[in-house]
Amino acid sequence: SLVLGAPRSFLNTSTLDVAVRWLEGAPDYNSGTTFGLPWPRGKFNANTTTFTGTAGSEKIQLQSWVTGYWPDGSVKWSGHAIPASQTIAEEYTITASGSDNLTVLFEKRQSAGIATDSGDGIVVDTGKISVTFPKSGSVLVSSIQTSGGKTVGQSGRLILRTQSDIIDYEDNSVNQTSIEHLEFQGVINQTTISEDSSTRALVTVSGTHQTEAGAGAWLPFTVRFYLYASSDAIKIVHNIVYDKNSSDTFVTGIGIKFDVPLAEEELYNRHVRLAGVDGGFFNEAVQGITGLRRDPGQEVSTAQVEGEETPDISTWATTVSSRTQWIPAWNDFRLTQLSPDGFNLQKRTKVGQSWVKIPGGTRSDGLAYLGGATAGGLAVGLRDFWKKYPTSLDISNAATDTGSITVWLYSPSAGPLDLRPFHDGLGESGNYTKQLDALEITYEDYEEGYNTPYGISKYSELFLYAFDTTPSSDTLATLTAHTNQPPVLFAEPDYIHSTKAIGSYWAPPDNSTAAAATIESNLNFLLSYYQQQVEQRRWYGFWDFGDFMHTYDVDRHTWRYDIGGYAWDNSELSPDLFWWNYFLRSGRADVYRFAEAQLRHVAETDVYHLGHMKGLGTRHGVQHWGDSAKQVRISTPIYRKIFWHLSGGDERVGELVREVLDVGEVWNVIDARRKVHTAGVNYVPDPTAVWISLGIDWSGIAIAWLIEWERRGPRWEESRERIFESMRTIANLTNGFVTGEALYNTYTGAISPPPTDPENLGEVTVAHLSASFGMLETISQLLDHLGPDDVPTGFLEAWLDYCYYYGASSVEQTARYGVSFGNLNLKQGHSRLTAWAANHLGNETLAQRAWNEFYNTDGLSLKTVWETEKVSGSKVLIPVDEASWLAANDAALYGLAGLENLALVGSALGDN
Amino acid sequence: SLVLGAPRSFLNTSTLDVAVRWLEGAPDYNSGTTFGLPWPRGKFNANTTTFTGTAGSEKIQLQSWVTGYWPDGSVKWSGHAIPASQTIAEEYTITASGSDNLTVLFEKRQSAGIATDSGDGIVVDTGKISVTFPKSGSVLVSSIQTSGGKTVGQSGRLILRTQSDIIDYEDNSVNQTSIEHLEFQGVINQTTISEDSSTRALVTVSGTHQTEAGAGAWLPFTVRFYLYASSDAIKIVHNIVYDKNSSDTFVTGIGIKFDVPLAEEELYNRHVRLAGVDGGFFNEAVQGITGLRRDPGQEVSTAQVEGEETPDISTWATTVSSRTQWIPAWNDFRLTQLSPDGFNLQKRTKVGQSWVKIPGGTRSDGLAYLGGATAGGLAVGLRDFWKKYPTSLDISNAATDTGSITVWLYSPSAGPLDLRPFHDGLGESGNYTKQLDALEITYEDYEEGYNTPYGISKYSELFLYAFDTTPSSDTLATLTAHTNQPPVLFAEPDYIHSTKAIGSYWAPPDNSTAAAATIESNLNFLLSYYQQQVEQRRWYGFWDFGDFMHTYDVDRHTWRYDIGGYAWDNSELSPDLFWWNYFLRSGRADVYRFAEAQLRHVAETDVYHLGHMKGLGTRHGVQHWGDSAKQVRISTPIYRKIFWHLSGGDERVGELVREVLDVGEVWNVIDARRKVHTAGVNYVPDPTAVWISLGIDWSGIAIAWLIEWERRGPRWEESRERIFESMRTIANLTNGFVTGEALYNTYTGAISPPPTDPENLGEVTVAHLSASFGMLETISQLLDHLGPDDVPTGFLEAWLDYCYYYGASSVEQTARYGVSFGNLNLKQGHSRLTAWAANHLGNETLAQRAWNEFYNTDGLSLKTVWETEKVSGSKVLIPVDEASWLAANDAALYGLAGLENLALVGSALGDN
Ligand SMILES: [Ca+2]
Ligand SMILES: [Ca+2]
Repeated sequence: SLVLGAPRSFLNTSTLDVAVRWLEGAPDYNSGTTFGLPWPRGKFNANTTTFTGTAGSEKIQLQSWVTGYWPDGSVKWSGHAIPASQTIAEEYTITASGSDNLTVLFEKRQSAGIATDSGDGIVVDTGKISVTFPKSGSVLVSSIQTSGGKTVGQSGRLILRTQSDIIDYEDNSVNQTSIEHLEFQGVINQTTISEDSSTRALVTVSGTHQTEAGAGAWLPFTVRFYLYASSDAIKIVHNIVYDKNSSDTFVTGIGIKFDVPLAEEELYNRHVRLAGVDGGFFNEAVQGITGLRRDPGQEVSTAQVEGEETPDISTWATTVSSRTQWIPAWNDFRLTQLSPDGFNLQKRTKVGQSWVKIPGGTRSDGLAYLGGATAGGLAVGLRDFWKKYPTSLDISNAATDTGSITVWLYSPSAGPLDLRPFHDGLGESGNYTKQLDALEITYEDYEEGYNTPYGISKYSELFLYAFDTTPSSDTLATLTAHTNQPPVLFAEPDYIHSTKAIGSYWAPPDNSTAAAATIESNLNFLLSYYQQQVEQRRWYGFWDFGDFMHTYDVDRHTWRYDIGGYAWDNSELSPDLFWWNYFLRSGRADVYRFAEAQLRHVAETDVYHLGHMKGLGTRHGVQHWGDSAKQVRISTPIYRKIFWHLSGGDERVGELVREVLDVGEVWNVIDARRKVHTAGVNYVPDPTAVWISLGIDWSGIAIAWLIEWERRGPRWEESRERIFESMRTIANLTNGFVTGEALYNTYTGAISPPPTDPENLGEVTVAHLSASFGMLETISQLLDHLGPDDVPTGFLEAWLDYCYYYGASSVEQTARYGVSFGNLNLKQGHSRLTAWAANHLGNETLAQRAWNEFYNTDGLSLKTVWETEKVSGSKVLIPVDEASWLAANDAALYGLAGLENLALVGSALGDN
Repeated sequence: SLVLGAPRSFLNTSTLDVAVRWLEGAPDYNSGTTFGLPWPRGKFNANTTTFTGTAGSEKIQLQSWVTGYWPDGSVKWSGHAIPASQTIAEEYTITASGSDNLTVLFEKRQSAGIATDSGDGIVVDTGKISVTFPKSGSVLVSSIQTSGGKTVGQSGRLILRTQSDIIDYEDNSVNQTSIEHLEFQGVINQTTISEDSSTRALVTVSGTHQTEAGAGAWLPFTVRFYLYASSDAIKIVHNIVYDKNSSDTFVTGIGIKFDVPLAEEELYNRHVRLAGVDGGFFNEAVQGITGLRRDPGQEVSTAQVEGEETPDISTWATTVSSRTQWIPAWNDFRLTQLSPDGFNLQKRTKVGQSWVKIPGGTRSDGLAYLGGATAGGLAVGLRDFWKKYPTSLDISNAATDTGSITVWLYSPSAGPLDLRPFHDGLGESGNYTKQLDALEITYEDYEEGYNTPYGISKYSELFLYAFDTTPSSDTLATLTAHTNQPPVLFAEPDYIHSTKAIGSYWAPPDNSTAAAATIESNLNFLLSYYQQQVEQRRWYGFWDFGDFMHTYDVDRHTWRYDIGGYAWDNSELSPDLFWWNYFLRSGRADVYRFAEAQLRHVAETDVYHLGHMKGLGTRHGVQHWGDSAKQVRISTPIYRKIFWHLSGGDERVGELVREVLDVGEVWNVIDARRKVHTAGVNYVPDPTAVWISLGIDWSGIAIAWLIEWERRGPRWEESRERIFESMRTIANLTNGFVTGEALYNTYTGAISPPPTDPENLGEVTVAHLSASFGMLETISQLLDHLGPDDVPTGFLEAWLDYCYYYGASSVEQTARYGVSFGNLNLKQGHSRLTAWAANHLGNETLAQRAWNEFYNTDGLSLKTVWETEKVSGSKVLIPVDEASWLAANDAALYGLAGLENLALVGSALGDN
């Protein structure tokens, strides 16, 4: 197909058709999907544009909204929701139609939408299911009713269990008999419904966990329920923020539970299904009538096994029907995934009796069904179940009138969640000299009190499916696949690229020359290697899935999981930007899934969302929250922006990027320079003058402002002003970005000279890390957004100077700034700054310099043999493939610079 | 080689060379081995025979003893121990030399042996290690010293942890705050040393577990330590007997712990090794100096990784040596195998700090090493570690002066061990009518009070290895393989067969005709299928490994793990006899390992070793100890006899077979017929007249007597008398074995007519199960042992009659006994009785009848398609291969009858 998604006629008409396709091809099941689309500047006035959707010649229902505006008010990004459907097209076309005389904002459905607010609750009726969400109490979902009128779910609630200490026979200080065990439930503070619910209704419930007696009120939660027209499913996004100190209490279980009414169903017509491996299922009835000494008749057995209503018991062989009282009914079922490689399965007849082992397996797909052949039932699945171990699935009270399904996001069968620091300070506490000396050896930046989980969060995604009758296990297998790989719609890279709405520094893959093809091959190597390492190194787990490690230990054949600053990567040197920009240019599904998992991890767990460090993230380390360097370089919204737009404005990510808006106030409290005070400078933080890095810190907040401005969030005008003010004042610095560090006014966004140069005589502080966390991508997007006419005077020049001089010769640096920048590294990564400048200036010589920096400075050289080596035998715990020459920093920088250089100065590459 | 192991000259000389070979080929490591050899009747007078061993032309050290005598006092079975050795021959020759003028019993070493009893302790000095065993207190092994004089192990002790109840949020009756957690240690009651310790010393320690305050005194243990001359290893056989009711307390951990002195070793020269998958290892130092920000020098890193002493710290780069105080030392390491498919690994710096996750894997080989490059250390491995999950390995206090290794036979990281019944009685309690009716549907024979674990036991095998310096991980991988597959020496099937010392109803494989080859192929199918099912159905676990399931549920594609009498097999219909006799005839290693695992399981866990049911086992069921039918058919020593002899008299099995000697007294208490009283008969058990089955019960006790007589145990003369008395009195029964049931005198062994026929007029009670648990094999071995002249008059005829008439026509039965035997089944299995009679009588017609019964009655017919079918997708949890037509009963009977018929009437087979 030729240029699908490209504008039909870009300039002369006010209509544009954009094709969107499924990430992994058309799925077997569609419960409704949301996605985002970019639009070129100045094309579609947000107030006068209609969006419509078609699948082939069929018009489809479409809910649309704007997630980004160009400064002129034209649509930059739109979000769209399509309903659930039986037939699923390979491709959909979204058409934007601009018109001067339209008065409607968007085409809306004639109906009032699928949600109704009744005052004390919200009811969403998709046409397939009707779901009621109360506004108070501990029940988040009070009823799930099918269109057939059956209530198949009730009392959806959140469960939290804790204990006050950990039994440790090596630790005499623990009083084992005084340990208190508590159970909490989520109690609603607020339940809201999305403004527009025409195709998609979003119910957001927030609150805290409290004991039955009302005590506790901690671990705040936000649970989002997404329901689409015509859908029998609910997507559930579950978030909690940890708001205790690590020794205060120990979480032993975090779950979400739904009741299933079963009173009307015979025990032998009640069915339990638990997902096994790769679409496999455990299929049993609560009271099994197969495998007995007497045969009720094959029709009866077959019906039960297939989840259908058995023939009436009066038709069974009486040798069975007269003896059902002797056939145990199984009340409780439990699947526990306590390691990423194995799960156990068991069931019991009732409390007080022993569990009976059922043969388990390796990796459960993480879905549980409970219901009846005639009464219907529920299935609940947790995405990435085994990857987020320890997890478990409980089916309880299946032999009583009300059964239940509990999905444990943290399994009570695992040991307590221990968030305490991994060491006692090693004598470094209270002494910066010691801490800095220790940094020299373990690379850990330690400081007592900073290694706290207070404020980190956890993201979980679940799907709930409702049924009028027990579904076939093949159906459940389809839903299990859907749960673990929710279908994604996206536009073609070529189209996205053409809009310039999400960066102009990337382009679709380029294999036009041998040199370009080699870079493409290397990028692919890096992407594949990290995916393989996740599996081989078991980078899975409740807090860990999504992350990877920072540096390899060649001697031990293991990543440095235990060494201070070399362990969890926490987005060090922006691998996020490599993955996401690579996805944008390629549309590769594996890259999307990898980047998505990393985003969900880093954005939640490596960043604080409560407390005095809110908005900052934690530097790489052994524990995600352990290092004392708390920075915006981990939380910078530049890492979230691509996903946020492509997802149609994912609500959780939208919330997270906004948290960074106020990070200036946090800098006033958390002085990043506290251990490395400059001699002779007495810096006292002050809201009008907070000492920050222009590269790391200003970039991080500037991209938050840009997103707020684009989306026209509640603070968009303030954000726009801050952008202009900060750009203007940076341009006022004598040495612009070469100044390196400066003072930031938290009230206005204005930048002023650093304490080391109060007279603005011209400070030179160039650091290798400044532009390693999205500075180029942030500035480039700011420039693209503003357009050439609106950029404050001098800003572009300041940026071009920084780009040019970082990699320039010492002689050139001295000629321009009076001093050399000294020995800088990460030049391979910085070659993309040179490339950006070369591209902007159309300077072929500079383009050549960019490639020279890419190939011949540091990082991964032309001599690199892009291969892995197999290591096995007694040297390693399990056989692994290693690229001992590769660390995450190099991968991130080579990857991002490689793809950006190809886009910016690819024509200058030749055939190196 | 021609007829290896066959007698050089069978009749005319008093010397015999027997070759023994390794089961799986010569191993890489030999820490000393024990094995048994049979000898023909009347050949070697036990008092005048010398045994010597050679490997090629080299004489080897050999300790020999007698484990079985023929009635004439000649050696029937001998046991032999060879020492550890560096070179390991493919084959050894054991020579028995008889001489009239020898006065020594056996050749013994000139030295006093390797053990010394010092009064308050026993010291075993193998030449490589010197190990001290106290006679009191809670330390079973007080010191392990290398020949280099280093103490590398101390304070070997047993650990038990319990809690008084299980936290269950579904169970309001559990008071969660009143749960008491206790730790017990094994306290010695007795420590003994084997009489002969010339090549092998056996130290046996027994006692109970007590709290530090001396309370408790429960869970009796016997721990056997085997040490061989020249060995640096200790084989440890650990046994516990559960002696509480299932609700009294809950075990949370069972471990064996050794201390390792480390005070003299630098932290960076202390090494931790934990076994991973298939010879893989986790290799770390307590204080790692690799992967740091600064490099101490490659020599330093390499030394540490390879477990060698590093160059002196003064030679390191000072950038490292000046900063070792900032490098965490890791005090504790933990590997937990909580499912058979995955293990987790973690470490921590000290108590009170969080554990740090280390990437784990699938199935750990189960060995832990702790020690120093200069101080030496210990490795401890648990055989079948992952197969016996939940297990774990702890290395503790490695950063202190005294580290320790704990091997957890039951991991404290798993939930409590729950031995309670799996159902509440379902209303059957106190009512035999209901229990019998329930038996009709679930096949469970339930009775309240009988589903108790009181008296079951658990067998564990460990190896401890001592080192002067940290060994290479390749060495540890070799020891790990040794731990999991301890080398076994055995003689050639041809030779064993020729001695007639262990049955004359089996013979080496016969592929001489197409029909025979088909049977051989089918036997192989059965053996392979069960091995495959163990893996696919995950028949692993603390109590479960070794067992398999009884019957398949075709509808659910699963074995009937949850259905009353169809779940765990508990030796139903003697599969043991199939496996072991198949091994005898083939020498096949996989069959030996499979049979060995089953034996260790059934003999311990399916049988009671304490309490009023001691000596009886439990019928097949959902829980190994659950069914109320407690019988000798599970505990019969006929299942243990082959292994017992081949192993050179395995001490634990020797103890277990002796437990059956007193089972007559148990029958007096446990009335097997209590639910099925015969109308009109008022049976009151009485020690002189206990109502038993001649097939199941008398066979079971008779084989115990035979073993006691053969081995000349403490009660051998009594046992011999009982054999004769019972054979004589059975012969006196008018209908002999056809009488079926009779009265047993527990004081004398005499059999008298049953209460249904007090006048001995001639009762006919023929049941399909009578001869299904080793009756033929027991009687045949009794007849072989006695020889034709000593068999009490009429006994052989009674047995031949039983063999002939079970499969005879109704007309013949009526002609002989006045009544027909009725509709009997298991005729395929009983064809071996017909074959035995045909062989004994030389009756070709009867031989043909045997084959007809084998092929054309019941069981696995000629129409059977010996294939499995793959089942996958959503029908099953994980993909499986199923032979839906096969149950364990059929497999056991076809297997045993097949191999016995080939041996007994193979020549009559023709080419069916
Ligand atoms: Ca992280
Ligand atoms: Ca068993």
